[in-house]
Amino acid sequence: MRFCSDCGSPVRFGPVDGDPLPRYVCTQCQTIHYQNPKVVCGCLATWEDRILFCKRAIEPRYGYWTLPAGFMENGETTAEGAQRETQEEANATVTIEGLYCVFNIPQISQIYMMFRGALVDGLHSPGAESLETVLWRDTEIPWEQLAFPAVKRTLKFYLADRQQQEFPVHVQDL
Amino acid sequence: MRFCSDCGSPVRFGPVDGDPLPRYVCTQCQTIHYQNPKVVCGCLATWEDRILFCKRAIEPRYGYWTLPAGFMENGETTAEGAQRETQEEANATVTIEGLYCVFNIPQISQIYMMFRGALVDGLHSPGAESLETVLWRDTEIPWEQLAFPAVKRTLKFYLADRQQQEFPVHVQDL
Repeated sequence: MRFCSDCGSPVRFGPVDGDPLPRYVCTQCQTIHYQNPKVVCGCLATWEDRILFCKRAIEPRYGYWTLPAGFMENGETTAEGAQRETQEEANATVTIEGLYCVFNIPQISQIYMMFRGALVDGLHSPGAESLETVLWRDTEIPWEQLAFPAVKRTLKFYLADRQQQEFPVHVQDL
Repeated sequence: MRFCSDCGSPVRFGPVDGDPLPRYVCTQCQTIHYQNPKVVCGCLATWEDRILFCKRAIEPRYGYWTLPAGFMENGETTAEGAQRETQEEANATVTIEGLYCVFNIPQISQIYMMFRGALVDGLHSPGAESLETVLWRDTEIPWEQLAFPAVKRTLKFYLADRQQQEFPVHVQDL
């Protein structure tokens, strides 16, 4: 950040009265510009005993496999974000079954909120950000070609919890 | 947002190639400026059978009672945010016991992440954003003078769950 998004003047980065942290502050209008972590919403979507995967058509991790996930938008809930991403990336409609994993990734100031969801009709096809979509049984998962640690962890939790048919919320720092 | 924070030129708000939603885009350098929901981290902090409350010294809801909570910062985990807010607002050190409530408030693009925590030594005093801090038993809670719906819901869940000594994660839209 170099300029004020309110008035276009240069910003400085430094101390602010009554705030323990340095901030970007406009040198003209004095507006303080806070920067905060971003939430990524995603979905482990199932159809019978299979899980929906998308092959990424964008960087980072082009060509690797992921669960549908992306940045949460203003005006939506976390569950709506997970549903929307599943629709956008895999043209698949899901019923959300519950929040499942919360992953903190403080190094990149992100929080993953992964939900469990059920496909309503088993239909799926690649959206603009996917090269391919598939429904895989657990024995078919390409563990070495998964896009992100959060994807791998979600799957590991799920395959373990599925044995007991109990899916508590998992919170973990990655 | 009226100006580009990268180059200081005016931004336009409108369609962007390959994106279903309109965005702020710089008319000069073409940078897309995304806007995303913010996370509020908070803590229901206990000492024996009492709960820590802060009387707000800032707007909104000046003079009303809250649980320590505030905007999550870059570079921290959600639990660290809850601990930091408890330290800043009540000069109280807590051990985090677990994620407890996730509240979506899409109308204002916020997600509350409330944790359960235990005070390490029972000590507390008002920080810069608090007029007063107290430890109250459940019969002492001033239900009509609570600052935010998320505070009230967290307390209601807690008092009910405490009977069973089981504290599952609650997810709710407010």
